[in-house]
Amino acid sequence: MSHPTVTFGNDFDTKNRSAFGERWMLEQIFKAIGPAPLRFMFKGGEAVSLPGVSPVATIVIRDRKTLAQMALDPEVAFGDAYADGRIELEGDLTSALEAVYRSWPSGRADRSFYQRLTSTWMERRQANSMDGSRHNIHSHYDLGNDFYKLWLDSQMVYTCAYFPTPSATLEEAQEAKLDYICRKLNLQPGERVVEAGCGWGALALHMARHYGVSVKAFNISHEQIMFARQRAAEEGLSDKVEFVEDDWRNIDDKFDVFVSVGMVEHISVSDYARMGQVIHRCVGDSGRGFLHFIGRSYKGVFSRWIRKRIFPGAYAPTLGEAMNILQPHHYAVLDVENLRLHYAKTVEHWLERFEQAGQKIAEMYDPWFQRACRLYLAGSIAAFRIGTLQLFQISFAGSQSVPRAWTRAGLYAGAKPAQEDRQWTHATS
Amino acid sequence: MSHPTVTFGNDFDTKNRSAFGERWMLEQIFKAIGPAPLRFMFKGGEAVSLPGVSPVATIVIRDRKTLAQMALDPEVAFGDAYADGRIELEGDLTSALEAVYRSWPSGRADRSFYQRLTSTWMERRQANSMDGSRHNIHSHYDLGNDFYKLWLDSQMVYTCAYFPTPSATLEEAQEAKLDYICRKLNLQPGERVVEAGCGWGALALHMARHYGVSVKAFNISHEQIMFARQRAAEEGLSDKVEFVEDDWRNIDDKFDVFVSVGMVEHISVSDYARMGQVIHRCVGDSGRGFLHFIGRSYKGVFSRWIRKRIFPGAYAPTLGEAMNILQPHHYAVLDVENLRLHYAKTVEHWLERFEQAGQKIAEMYDPWFQRACRLYLAGSIAAFRIGTLQLFQISFAGSQSVPRAWTRAGLYAGAKPAQEDRQWTHATS
Repeated sequence: MSHPTVTFGNDFDTKNRSAFGERWMLEQIFKAIGPAPLRFMFKGGEAVSLPGVSPVATIVIRDRKTLAQMALDPEVAFGDAYADGRIELEGDLTSALEAVYRSWPSGRADRSFYQRLTSTWMERRQANSMDGSRHNIHSHYDLGNDFYKLWLDSQMVYTCAYFPTPSATLEEAQEAKLDYICRKLNLQPGERVVEAGCGWGALALHMARHYGVSVKAFNISHEQIMFARQRAAEEGLSDKVEFVEDDWRNIDDKFDVFVSVGMVEHISVSDYARMGQVIHRCVGDSGRGFLHFIGRSYKGVFSRWIRKRIFPGAYAPTLGEAMNILQPHHYAVLDVENLRLHYAKTVEHWLERFEQAGQKIAEMYDPWFQRACRLYLAGSIAAFRIGTLQLFQISFAGSQSVPRAWTRAGLYAGAKPAQEDRQWTHATS
Repeated sequence: MSHPTVTFGNDFDTKNRSAFGERWMLEQIFKAIGPAPLRFMFKGGEAVSLPGVSPVATIVIRDRKTLAQMALDPEVAFGDAYADGRIELEGDLTSALEAVYRSWPSGRADRSFYQRLTSTWMERRQANSMDGSRHNIHSHYDLGNDFYKLWLDSQMVYTCAYFPTPSATLEEAQEAKLDYICRKLNLQPGERVVEAGCGWGALALHMARHYGVSVKAFNISHEQIMFARQRAAEEGLSDKVEFVEDDWRNIDDKFDVFVSVGMVEHISVSDYARMGQVIHRCVGDSGRGFLHFIGRSYKGVFSRWIRKRIFPGAYAPTLGEAMNILQPHHYAVLDVENLRLHYAKTVEHWLERFEQAGQKIAEMYDPWFQRACRLYLAGSIAAFRIGTLQLFQISFAGSQSVPRAWTRAGLYAGAKPAQEDRQWTHATS
C-alpha cells in the first residue's frame, strides 16, 4: 500500500531548525494515518494541514514530547494525550476520528516494528487465560454499575441495539434487539438456554419472561452478576434464570440453545476451537445457537489504545475466523446479519447520554477517565460508521437439527413498511 | 470417529464359504456408510440388514463383481451400478439415500486410501483451468436445452429457488428467487451489473426488465448463451443485457454490482483468490455483490460419483472457505442466508417433472443416462434435506460502500404472515 506524499503549504517555516523537526514529525503522522483532513497546531503556533484538503477539525498539541510520541505511534499516543489533556481538539471529535478512519489505509495493521512489538507484548500481557480473562473483564465491566446506569438504557444492555427504524429510542431499540435474538433463535417454551457472557442479565430475563424458557447465564464480572441476580429476584424470575459467576470454559451442562452476545470479542482466536468444544458439549448436534460480536472485514489486531486503556485482550474476528468456532463441529450457519450501522447509532445514543451526565461523571471520576471514555465512545461511532468495525449476528444449528423457520419473513411480520428505510437511505447517501 | 460394529442376524449362512465372502463385503459397506436402515439382497438370495433396524428400502445386487466394487468404494460403485442397472432398488430412492446420508458419519470424507487416491486423481483430471472449465461445463450444461426444458421451470433456472411458502409452485418460486436477489442487492435504475455464470439468462433479464439496470452476463456454456441471446432478442432486452460467451476470469470492465448464482461450485478453492481479484477489478471498493452457491458446514470433497458422472470439477465450500474470495479485498459480508430446505424442495419439483417426462427422456437418451440423472436428483434432495449440503446466499459490499437498507424488513414487506410457516414447522417436526 503506497503512502501519500506529504507536502505542506508555505505557512510552516522550514528555515527554523526546530520547525524542521516538527515538520518531519508531522509528516510521520500523516504517513501513518493517510491524508486525513485535519489541521495540526503545535504550542499555539501556526496551523498545518495538507494542501488541497479542507480540515474538519484542529488538533492542538501542547508539547514537543507529545508530538514526538505521536510521530512514533499516532494511535496510542493520540489516545493517551487526548485523555491526559495534552491534546485539545477543536471541532467535533467523532467527525475528526471518522475522517482519520476514512483516510487510514484500509486494512490498517500495526505496520512499524515498534507498533508490532507493543501489540505482541500487549497480547501476551493481556492473554485471556482463566485468570487473565477475569482481570480483563473486571477492569472494564466492574467500573461500577452506577457509572453505566448514567449512559446505558434502562435495562443496562451494553451491546449493539437493533433499531427497527432509525428514529427508535435507545430503550425501544435494546428491547427490540433482545426480542429479535429470541425470534432468530425460534425459542420454544420449556427449552433450556445457556448464555455465555450475560452482562447485566437483560437477555436472559427477556427470554424467560417472554418465551417461557429456562436460562443459565454465565459471567465473570462480579458487579454484573450481582445486579442481574437482584433483578431476577425483583421480577420473580429467579426460578427461571440462574446467574452463575463463572467462566464460559466451565459450562458443562446440557442445553437446547447456546447464546452469546458481546463475548466473542473477549476470547482469543487461539481459544475459538475451545469455544466450539464448549458449545458442542452443551447443545451437541441437535441444538442450535447464536453469536453476536464485533467483527471485521479483514484480519487485523484491535486498536492498541483500546486494548491498552479500555478492553484489554479484545479482538474482533473476521467472519472467516469466527467459523473456526463452528466448523470443527459441523455447525451449519443459518443466518448472518451485519448490523454495523445499528452499532454506530447505539453508541451515538450512549455518547449523548454520557455527555448529558458529564457533571455527575466528573464528580465520580477524574478528568482522565472521562476524556478516555469520550474518546472510546466517539471512536467506536466512527469505526462502525466507516466500517473499520462490523457487527455480526450469526444463527447456527447442529448437524442433526432441522431449521425451524421456512423463511425469515416471520422475523419481520408486523414490521413497518420500508418507507422510513428509504428516507434514511437518501438522507445518508 | 468410531464405526458401528456390524452383526447380522442368523439369516445369512456363514458356513457357506461363498456366503462368508459376501458377508465380509457387506460388512465393509456398512462400515463405510454407517448403520443405515437398508436391506441388501444378493442374486435374489436372502435379504440382509442390521439387526434392530427397520429397513426403508432393499438394494438388490445382481452380481458378485458389483458387490465387490461396493465393498471397495460404496459411493461410486453404487452410483455406477444403479445407473447401469446392475443394482435395483426396491422402495423409494430418495428415502433410501436420505437414510444413508443420515447414518453416514458426519463430515464423511473419502477415508480409504483407494478413495483418496481416486479423488485426487479426479481433481487433477478435472482441474478448472480455462480449458478444463470449458470441458467440465460443456459436459453438463450443453446436454441439450430440450432436455432441461422437460423438467426445469418455464424460465430455465437451474439453481435453488426461493419458496415464499412451501406450497408455491416451481414457477412462482424461481420468479421469487430472481426478485429476492434483486432486492437483496438493492438494485437502482441505471446501475451496471456483471453476472458471472448466467445459465440460460433468467436473472440478467429479470434485473434489466424490472430494475432498469444494464447487465453484462458471462457463461462458457455455448448452448445456454445462444438460448439467452435469443430470449433477450424476443423480449426486446438486447440493448440492456449483453450475453458474452467467455470465462469469468476474463471479465475486466467496470460495474456497480457483481452477481454470481450457482457458479462458485464450479471454481476450484485454489482459484478463490483469483475470483476475489476479478470481483475487485469489476466493482472495486465502492461496489457490492452477491454470491449464491452450494456449500457445506464442514470441509470435504464433493461426492466422487457426482464429480465422475454429473459435475466434473465441482466443489462445495464451507462459509469459511468462501471468505477467501471476499476477505483479501476487505469486502464486508452484509447478509448470509442458508436456503438448503428450499433447494431440497426445488429438486423435488425437478425430479417430479423428470419422472413425468420419463417417456420423452427415454426416447431422447439411453437408460443409463436416465437412471444416472434420477440418482443425481434424488441424491441432491436427500443431501439438502439432511444437511450434507447447504445453500448459501451471501450479500457483500466494498469497504467504501454504504449499506443501502437500514434493516432487512423491506425484503419481506407484503410477505404473508408467518402462519403458514408455523404449520410447516409442525408438519416436519
